[in-house]
Parts: sequence; C-alpha cells; structure tokens
Amino acid sequence: MTGRVAIVGAGPGDPELLTLRAARELESAELVLYDALVSPEILALAPRAQRFSVGKRAGRPSMRQETIHALMIRAARRGKRVVRLKGGDPFVFGRGGEEVLALRAAGVPYEIVPGISASVSAPALAGIPVTHRGLATAFTVVSGHAETAWRPVLAGVNPRGHTVVVLMGLAARRAIPAFLIAERGFASTTPTALLLAAGTPHAYTWIGPLEALGGFEVPAGLEDAPGTIVVGDVVGLAPAAALREGSQGDAYALTR
Amino acid sequence: MTGRVAIVGAGPGDPELLTLRAARELESAELVLYDALVSPEILALAPRAQRFSVGKRAGRPSMRQETIHALMIRAARRGKRVVRLKGGDPFVFGRGGEEVLALRAAGVPYEIVPGISASVSAPALAGIPVTHRGLATAFTVVSGHAETAWRPVLAGVNPRGHTVVVLMGLAARRAIPAFLIAERGFASTTPTALLLAAGTPHAYTWIGPLEALGGFEVPAGLEDAPGTIVVGDVVGLAPAAALREGSQGDAYALTR
Repeated sequence: MTGRVAIVGAGPGDPELLTLRAARELESAELVLYDALVSPEILALAPRAQRFSVGKRAGRPSMRQETIHALMIRAARRGKRVVRLKGGDPFVFGRGGEEVLALRAAGVPYEIVPGISASVSAPALAGIPVTHRGLATAFTVVSGHAETAWRPVLAGVNPRGHTVVVLMGLAARRAIPAFLIAERGFASTTPTALLLAAGTPHAYTWIGPLEALGGFEVPAGLEDAPGTIVVGDVVGLAPAAALREGSQGDAYALTR
Repeated sequence: MTGRVAIVGAGPGDPELLTLRAARELESAELVLYDALVSPEILALAPRAQRFSVGKRAGRPSMRQETIHALMIRAARRGKRVVRLKGGDPFVFGRGGEEVLALRAAGVPYEIVPGISASVSAPALAGIPVTHRGLATAFTVVSGHAETAWRPVLAGVNPRGHTVVVLMGLAARRAIPAFLIAERGFASTTPTALLLAAGTPHAYTWIGPLEALGGFEVPAGLEDAPGTIVVGDVVGLAPAAALREGSQGDAYALTR
C-alpha cells in the first residue's frame, strides 16, 4: 500500500496564516520534511509525525535535493503520509517543481497545497499593497540570490507604475538599488522597504529612499532572516504613524 | 465602543485554502461585505454575520468604492466586527489599499489578513510552478483588464527565463499573445495556459502554444469565471498525463 506526499506551503511564518488544508495535512502526517524557515509553532501542528529538517541551518549546508526526493519517495512507498513543508508557497523559489517531477517519475501520489507567498504577504503585513490604483498595475517577483538571474529581469522594469519585489534580498540590498538607479532610471528617492522576518514575532521593517537601502545595517540576530525588498511608489502607502526615525541615516525603521 | 474591520483574503475559492486566521475572523464576524468571487461555502463560515455582496454580479455593476468605505466605517463605528472579504489576496488587484487608506483616515481600527493569490495558486493547482530552476527565475503579475496598463509592463519582459501571469486575463487572450509574439519576440510555440475558475469545482485548464490562445472558445457557463493566463516554459511542467487533446485545434484541455 502506497502512501502519499503533500507538498505544502507553510506561508510566511505565523501559524495563523497556514491554510486550513495545510493544518489538516500536518495533523495527519506521519513524516514531515521541513525547511529552515518553518517555525516551531507550525511544526507543533504535526504531533504524530516524525519531523526532519532538510534545510540550511547555522552554516551547515542543506540536504541535497536528490536526498530529499529519495526520502519522500521511500517513505511514501512504505505507506507513510508525508508532508514536505516549505516556507511561503512551494512553487515560488521553493524547488517544489523539482520535487513534483521526482514524485511523478517515481509514480508516487502527491498533491500540492499552495501557501501564502512572502512576495505578497511580507509587504501586506507592513501595510504595503503590491498593486494600487494609480500607483502600480503590476509587480515583478525576483530572487536576489544571483545577479545573473535578477539582472536580465530587472533590466525590463519601469521606474513607475510597477512594483519590484525581491525575495532573498538581503545580500542584494546594495547591488539592486545601484542597478535600478544607474541603469533603469529609478529616482534615488523611490520609496523602498526591506522586510526582515515578515510574519514572525521578529519582524523588522525598514523604509526609506532607494539610495539609502545599501547603507542599512542589519540588526543583530536578523542576519539570517529572510529579507524581502520592495521598490516602488506603493511603499509610500505604509502607515506613516507606524514609522519612526531610525538610526540608519536617512532611513526610517519600525520594529514590531 | 468602536468595532474593527478585517480586510481578509479568501484565497482562490476552495474553502480549504482559507487561512486559519481568515476562518476565525469569519466565525466571529457580525457583518461581511464580500466580492462576487467569494464562494457560498466560504460565506457559510460566517454564520453569525449579516452578509452583503458588494461585487459585480450578473451584469449589474459593483457597488461604488466610496459606498463600500462608508458601509465599513459606519458599521465599525457602531461597534461591529466587520470582515471585508475579497477573492485571492486583498492587495493584489483587490483595491484593499484604497480601503485601508479610507479606514485609516476615519480612525477605524483595521487589520489585514493576506490570502492566497490566484497569481501563484491558479498555476500551482494546475501543476505549474511560476518559478523553476533552469526555466524561470522570476515572474511578473499584471492585470489583463486594460491594455494601457499591461502594455508598458509586458514591453519589458523577456521571452525566456521569466513567467508572465495575467490576472483577469480572459478578455485579453487575443491581444496579449499577439503583443508578446510581435513585439517581444516570444516564440509562437511558447507553452501557455489559461486557467478558468481555478480553485473551484468548475476549474478548467487550457494548455497550448501561445499563438493558439486567441482561438480558445470559452466553455458555456465559464464566460464570467476569473481567468488567469500563464506564459512561459514552466507551463510545460504541467502533468502530461493529465492533459488530453481538446476540441480547440492545437490546444489541449483538461477539465477537472
């Protein structure tokens, strides 16, 4: 008797932002393979399951993707209900597609449970809509991980009318603003946000002009937090009352 | 005593894809103002609430945005717990930002509950990841509603390495492929999907080459369904076994 694998998005971190379906999958799971960004509160929703971290942690590299595939397939073939639990949505920079292909090739039944992607929810939780009438009619989501990946994409974005969202953006906080200003004609004052650990109790929001992002110094303890950069006029809609002048030069910081 | 307003994303339609938080807000709501795309099954989760549709329906125009603002504010000032319930995510073409500004200006307490946006979940539910190693390192989300809005955005997208997602795309199914092929150099064979009513029991998936999308004839009963167009190599990852040759010329159709 074959088990099955649910590839489940855990959302941005707050257990309340799990879907009902994700919570049910966790409740009945016998094995949970989870990424580093999944919170202990969410894992606690899978009381019956064996739980293994397969993500990067404290400098140790993550498990090889092929090893994750093999673990899922082996457990499902032994009849287990497996949940592959990923931060955000499994198909937004989550390598969920690769896992689906591996399961399909192995003939293992699977299903996909979408989750709330930080690309939309990290800005939303800071009061920033990625689209807004008169300000932005589109948004582009890109990973900040590799310049070879983001450069050709951002080479096509316009300074106005369009929101740029960079996931895994922390390390790119100098290079991307410099590129947008020098090569795409973005105003140096374009409203910009850096959202660290959005959707968790450690959430930290920096808001300031595009040119100041590169000088942002990451607060202690958040060096490894997921960082989402948002660039565009919509950032100006973040609640003014919630912003206070920070210690980062021209920038404003809000610690929640 | 002042009530409060929760601006809540209802996700793509399936009640199981609501967040735990959205379900709790509905459970305690006294007034629910909902858009046309919200399903009866989801409304049934608000048993105590008065429920009003404020969206477009059967040709009748939607309520004016200012009227929606006034209703929310008045009810909150009378101490009610109000839920403003929107399909997908409130901040992705949902005018949630305008509602937040109105509530803020009125001094009414509010909170934002992100929902699963069709921009990611409609493709995901058809087995299409918006990003995939080696195929797409970014995605752009645009509304198909007005050519003046999508044209300057799509003028910057590349034929490869990038996924284009068009929400409210049904009426643009001729113009957008024509534009991408003629003006952006997209191959006429670029894998393309049209996802109708994704996340509902009426979900219908069309997959075929970009050049064939314009000839797609909408199945009876789905003329007003929300339609999401996805263009890019990731569409080729949709499960081959689930596709069958359809009645639309070169296209393939899958009715779930």
